[in-house]
Amino acid sequence: MTTNTTTAEDLFPTRLATPGDFIERAQPAVWGSADDGPFTASDLEAHEQRGFTIIDDFIGADDVALYSGELDRLAADASLKDDPRMITERTTGTVRSVFEVEKLSEALDALARNPYVLDRARQIVGSEVYLHQTRINYMPSFTGTGFYWHSDFETWHAEDGMPIPRSVSLSIALTDNYPFNGGLMVMPGSHRTFVPAVGETPENNHEQSLQAQEAGVPSHAAITTLADRYGIDQFTGAAGSALWFDSNIMHGSGNNITPYARSNVFMVFNSVENTLVEPFAAKAQRPEHIANREFTPLR
Amino acid sequence: MTTNTTTAEDLFPTRLATPGDFIERAQPAVWGSADDGPFTASDLEAHEQRGFTIIDDFIGADDVALYSGELDRLAADASLKDDPRMITERTTGTVRSVFEVEKLSEALDALARNPYVLDRARQIVGSEVYLHQTRINYMPSFTGTGFYWHSDFETWHAEDGMPIPRSVSLSIALTDNYPFNGGLMVMPGSHRTFVPAVGETPENNHEQSLQAQEAGVPSHAAITTLADRYGIDQFTGAAGSALWFDSNIMHGSGNNITPYARSNVFMVFNSVENTLVEPFAAKAQRPEHIANREFTPLR
Repeated sequence: MTTNTTTAEDLFPTRLATPGDFIERAQPAVWGSADDGPFTASDLEAHEQRGFTIIDDFIGADDVALYSGELDRLAADASLKDDPRMITERTTGTVRSVFEVEKLSEALDALARNPYVLDRARQIVGSEVYLHQTRINYMPSFTGTGFYWHSDFETWHAEDGMPIPRSVSLSIALTDNYPFNGGLMVMPGSHRTFVPAVGETPENNHEQSLQAQEAGVPSHAAITTLADRYGIDQFTGAAGSALWFDSNIMHGSGNNITPYARSNVFMVFNSVENTLVEPFAAKAQRPEHIANREFTPLR
Repeated sequence: MTTNTTTAEDLFPTRLATPGDFIERAQPAVWGSADDGPFTASDLEAHEQRGFTIIDDFIGADDVALYSGELDRLAADASLKDDPRMITERTTGTVRSVFEVEKLSEALDALARNPYVLDRARQIVGSEVYLHQTRINYMPSFTGTGFYWHSDFETWHAEDGMPIPRSVSLSIALTDNYPFNGGLMVMPGSHRTFVPAVGETPENNHEQSLQAQEAGVPSHAAITTLADRYGIDQFTGAAGSALWFDSNIMHGSGNNITPYARSNVFMVFNSVENTLVEPFAAKAQRPEHIANREFTPLR
């Protein structure tokens, strides 16, 4: 019998005192089959190999406008000014992310529960799912700063106690993603390789890591090895396109000096068979608006 | 009779106290014809329209290795450590540029004088040419910082007294330029439009402007207008590819968090009929390793 107690064994030791070897994961990226949802067998095979799937025109212009409007509304909401769910740019004070948007926006709550989205998430993780984290991200024009290379799962495992990489993230572009306006770079196939990070997690690390990550950052040598092995792709596409990606894929983004801002909706669907335990490499849990511990399946 | 005295009339007022209108330039980008050199009539027509020309495989792998070796040799030369021609990254101290490389490297001096290069430069500016500025640039992997949007001619006019945009720059890639490793972005056609900058030039501005430009920077509104009008292209291509570009084209580059460093040789060929006068918008001339005042035609 599998319980949370046995899955709490630490299969991905990280935040180590000295550099550790890469771990080639035993778990698949895709847990379901073509019979379980809208993705075809070849879609799922490609997702398993590359660790991500891009769908152009995933949502239409009306929905892009709807969710963009929600971003503007939340960014302008004076009652949220000191809310911990609002993350601002370190240098300019501009809103960079709004977390837990399913609780702040009926439209985004409905999006997460829409079978058009939910069936795909369930199919990839092979079970019912719940929302581990949601946010709207905004990268301003001219002064947008990127995110350095990282695996989301490394953080979620170390700081949130997510046992294994059995979760899938959905990023929906609300603006056009060009190759030159700070779009996401991914290393196709890198989701198979877990890169242990060096260095103990500072207390209350999330208070700065959401502006610029410092703990859990892979070494230059590790990034070079992964890039040589897997190469680098960019997520480009018009507003409305979607990127489904594995929680352990190595990704990052450069800065944005163009006049074209970038924003997106980001939702993480975790398997209800992979719910959080105590953090594997941090002294305390992160707040629930960053790492949800309400595991009720989405319906 | 045209002399330097009459061409010293300030046709491009800049570093103004208040924002000025764009100036649509009267001068062509291309002054020669197909009979004058290796570029065909359609090559020249395209250069006139777009303000730049990309040539793949402009130099071969042996030459790429030769010039890369010169960069490494100069960056490691202890006798150049405190030489003003060596520009380092503000944060890391890594060599960012080496100026006046034709005087530091016989190989690069020979490159500038090679008819394969020189005939193209002469053809574009329609006269004999001399070197206004040369450098090798190095953008490191992981921590490379870009250059914000600017027109080279705006600086050369304001700070060096270059009368009109009758010069052409050659950038030869010594490393592969991907869309994602901090490569050059250009706005095709923007060379036709001169954007006056706001703000007086600080004294000894070049002492910091070569690390990160602050004076002569176009406003967000101006960049947005130009981008809407002209769009943004990227200079991508393998090591050995060349970019010939007009001195007034609006260009910039983002940062580089990839494991792929970027380096290039950069040479500016100015017409001997467009030699420098006193700076149009600065109190003193810049040093000659940045703005050469030895106008002998290259042979």
